This record gives sequence, C-alpha cells and structure tokens, in this order.
Amino acid sequence: MKELVFVGLGLNDEKGVSVGGLEEIKTAENVFMEQYTSLMPDFSLQRFEALCGKHVRLVSRCELEEENGKSILEAAEKGKTVFLVPGDPFIATTHVTLRIDAEKNGLKTRIVHGASIISAIVSLSGLHNYKFGKSVTVPFPANFSATPYDVITQNKKTGLHTLCLLDLNAAEKKFLSISEAVTLLLEVEKKKSQGAVTQDTPTVGVARAGSKSPILKADFVKDIVDFNFGEPPYSLIFPGKMHFMEIEALIAFAGAPSQFRRLAR
Amino acid sequence: MKELVFVGLGLNDEKGVSVGGLEEIKTAENVFMEQYTSLMPDFSLQRFEALCGKHVRLVSRCELEEENGKSILEAAEKGKTVFLVPGDPFIATTHVTLRIDAEKNGLKTRIVHGASIISAIVSLSGLHNYKFGKSVTVPFPANFSATPYDVITQNKKTGLHTLCLLDLNAAEKKFLSISEAVTLLLEVEKKKSQGAVTQDTPTVGVARAGSKSPILKADFVKDIVDFNFGEPPYSLIFPGKMHFMEIEALIAFAGAPSQFRRLAR
Repeated sequence: MKELVFVGLGLNDEKGVSVGGLEEIKTAENVFMEQYTSLMPDFSLQRFEALCGKHVRLVSRCELEEENGKSILEAAEKGKTVFLVPGDPFIATTHVTLRIDAEKNGLKTRIVHGASIISAIVSLSGLHNYKFGKSVTVPFPANFSATPYDVITQNKKTGLHTLCLLDLNAAEKKFLSISEAVTLLLEVEKKKSQGAVTQDTPTVGVARAGSKSPILKADFVKDIVDFNFGEPPYSLIFPGKMHFMEIEALIAFAGAPSQFRRLAR
Repeated sequence: MKELVFVGLGLNDEKGVSVGGLEEIKTAENVFMEQYTSLMPDFSLQRFEALCGKHVRLVSRCELEEENGKSILEAAEKGKTVFLVPGDPFIATTHVTLRIDAEKNGLKTRIVHGASIISAIVSLSGLHNYKFGKSVTVPFPANFSATPYDVITQNKKTGLHTLCLLDLNAAEKKFLSISEAVTLLLEVEKKKSQGAVTQDTPTVGVARAGSKSPILKADFVKDIVDFNFGEPPYSLIFPGKMHFMEIEALIAFAGAPSQFRRLAR
C-alpha cells in the first residue's frame, strides 16, 4: 500500500514510541528517521533497530530541506513507508512541507502521535496547561533578539505563563544553558525596563524533560543562575499569575522556596 | 519499591501507551486507571488487560476527588503502583493534587508521558505550534460564559491562534458539537461585537484527533456548521494571522476552500 506514515518517537529513548507506532514500523516496507529537530538524550539507533526488527535509514537535514525529502517520497510511491520524528511529528514545523508534498502527489498520509516535549514540561511543572500563552525559543547569543523577552512581557500582561525552549544544536552538541538564557533576558530588561525578567522574577528551570531523571528547580532569577541542572536539554518557564495550588506544586515538584507562597494571586 | 508512577495512556486506544509505559505496568504490583478526564474512543479495558497481563482497577471521579485517591496512595505505600491516565497525565489539572499528596507522604513519584490531545490537534492542522496563544474549553450551554470568546479575541489581537476543546461528559456520552459551539460563540459576538467570531471568520473543526480516522475541515463559520464531522470528541481552532504555508497546510490536510489564500499575512 502506497502511504507515508509519520510516527512520533516520543521522548528520551527508543521506548518513547507508542505500542501502535511500533506496530506501524514492523509492518512498513521502508523506515526513515531524522534526529536533528530535537534531542532524545538516551536514544540508541542500534537498540531501536533491535526493538522493531527493521533497518532504519537516517536522513539528514540537507536531504529533507534542500532535496525536499525526495528519497522518502520515492520510497512511499512503492510501498508503506514510515518516517520517524522525535516527539510529536509536527510540533517542530519542519516536516509540514513534506506532508503537503506527499498529499499533492496523491499519497495517503497518516500521523501516529508521540509524547511532545511541550506537554511534558507543562506536566512536570504542575502548572495549569490552560494558563500558558504563546511559547518561544530562546536562541543562542549569535541569533539573539528581544523577541523572547517581548513574548514573556505580553503573556504576563494577561497573567499567562510562558514556556521557553532553550536553543540547541544536536549535531554539534551545543546547548544554551539556563543561566546563559537568563543572563540574555536580563540584558534586554536593562534596555526595555518592562519588569518581565528581573533578579526577583520567579522562574522554573527544567532539564531533560521526558527522561527518567528530569531536574526541575523553581527559584527567583538571582538564585536560579547558580543551580546545577546537569545534562541538557534545557527549558525555562516564566509563570504569570499563579493559583496557590500551582505554587504548592512548584514547592513539591521543583523545590521552590517557601517565599513563592507570597506570589499567589 | 514504594513509588507511584503516573503513566500516560496517549490517544484513542490501548496502543496509545508508550513501549516504556507498558513496561512500567508489567513490573507494577498495583495498576489503577481513570477514564473520566478524557475520552479514548476506541479503548477496550479487556484488550488492554490482555496487552499488559495485569488486572487494572478502575477508579471513579468520586474516589479521586472526594476521597483524594486514598486507595491509590495506600497501594503505593506497599509497592510499586502505576496510575494510568488518558493522554499526558497532568495536562488535565485533576491529578496534580494526588501527586502533591504522594510527595508529602514521602512517596517517590515519576511520570511516563503520553501523546496529548493538545499537541495532536496542533500537529494534525499543520498550523505552527509557537503561534498558538492560551487555549480554552467551550462549555455546554448550561455553563456557558463569554470566556472562550474573550480568549479568542485576546489571542487575535496579537495574531495568535486559539485551540478550543469542546466540552464532553464521557460518563453520560454527551459531547458539545462543533455547530453548537460555533452558535454559542456567535451569540456572544452579537453582544460584544469585537469581530472575533463572525459568519466570515475562518475556523478549523477537528473530530477524533489521535484516532485512526481523524476528520479535519477548515472553512468559514457560516459553512462549517453544515459539515458532518461524524463521531466525537470535537475541537475547534480559530486561526490568528496565518503564514501562507499554514494556509497551504489547511488546504492540503483540512480541505480549506481556496479563498483561504486571501487570508495570508
């Protein structure tokens, strides 16, 4: 059957894929995978191939973005093809074009969803999902702009939390750290003085969301920079207005100092 | 080992759970499950018990909310206990209290994430995740207020998309339909006249996100009310400013009319 099935690998390691996703792989004629849009810290391709009993062909960013995934589309013209993507397949916007091209070529496409880093970070924090506004990526210093600061400011105006993913280059093993990100945001504060990120702003740092040993630490900006989060990847939450139950969650799950109780609104 | 592991069941059926989540169940001494915070349309408890080889004890809303999950906490005091929750375990805020109570009682807690309806709907639509603002639930007429309309209005002011989950009562098999939700929002428009939801507003209806046969239809409000979405559950997206690639995605994946191309910003 000619079809292209996008299967989410979920989080962290080769066991993040769903039982249904694994079945799709086992019945596919061709299996492709990319591992550059997101980092799965404990993923082993060798163990994954043993789990699914298939050869998995890694595709590069170049093959997908410059050659428009031609090899994947050609394989799908011949028989059932699975394309494996970390997390949930379209949370990174990269592969939407490939799906549009497939549909335009008359190929049937389907999605088998996986756990996404976005919902994992929210889940871990205990903060309420419906109180998150727009999310944003904090880029490396070379590409930095005021955008993340502006997003946090805008969300805070309406009491909303902001999820910040910190930039990473999985191929070069470079990761923006939590203290680097906070320092970049404090520099924008100096210029814009909107009060969105000051030394006394409460924040939640998260390392390795979705792994077996995620680290969460809630603290004020001036103290979070000294906390040792261990290995990447990293993210940050800037809470807006917090319900007292959200604060109790941050105390229980993220070691927030008891002064956080004064922040309840 | 005394611990409480929250395992996300992911979406739709008994194969939505991750391979790692299934292993946690197989090695647990006690397995509990709730199925009232979200609907998994094709889930069979019997097939699930066959898959994991364990007896699964269903817990009611009353046991969790009025008795604070006492039975689960008592089981976890004796040995490894898994609590199964549809989707990603804490995207519904219901179980945060149980986790706080467990941690306060000195129990170790862990989360094995699952695919969430939130990221599934975004993924299916092809709209860009980082352009979504605050999400909202549209309640049944008896509990309806202007809040969903206000959230859509607020998001549109800054060009953001709004994800609306439509209310459901899984136990009573009652589901707010897409045309009912749109009609309720149009009534608020009559009073508030902010232009957020008019007959000419573009919208995307989604039925059974995460299932094998999700239905998506993008259209203007005046036309979407006549579309047959089939079986529940339902959700709606009200797009803010759309990039032309997002519009191409809605045309390819959700049958948007070509007039949508004029909406590109």
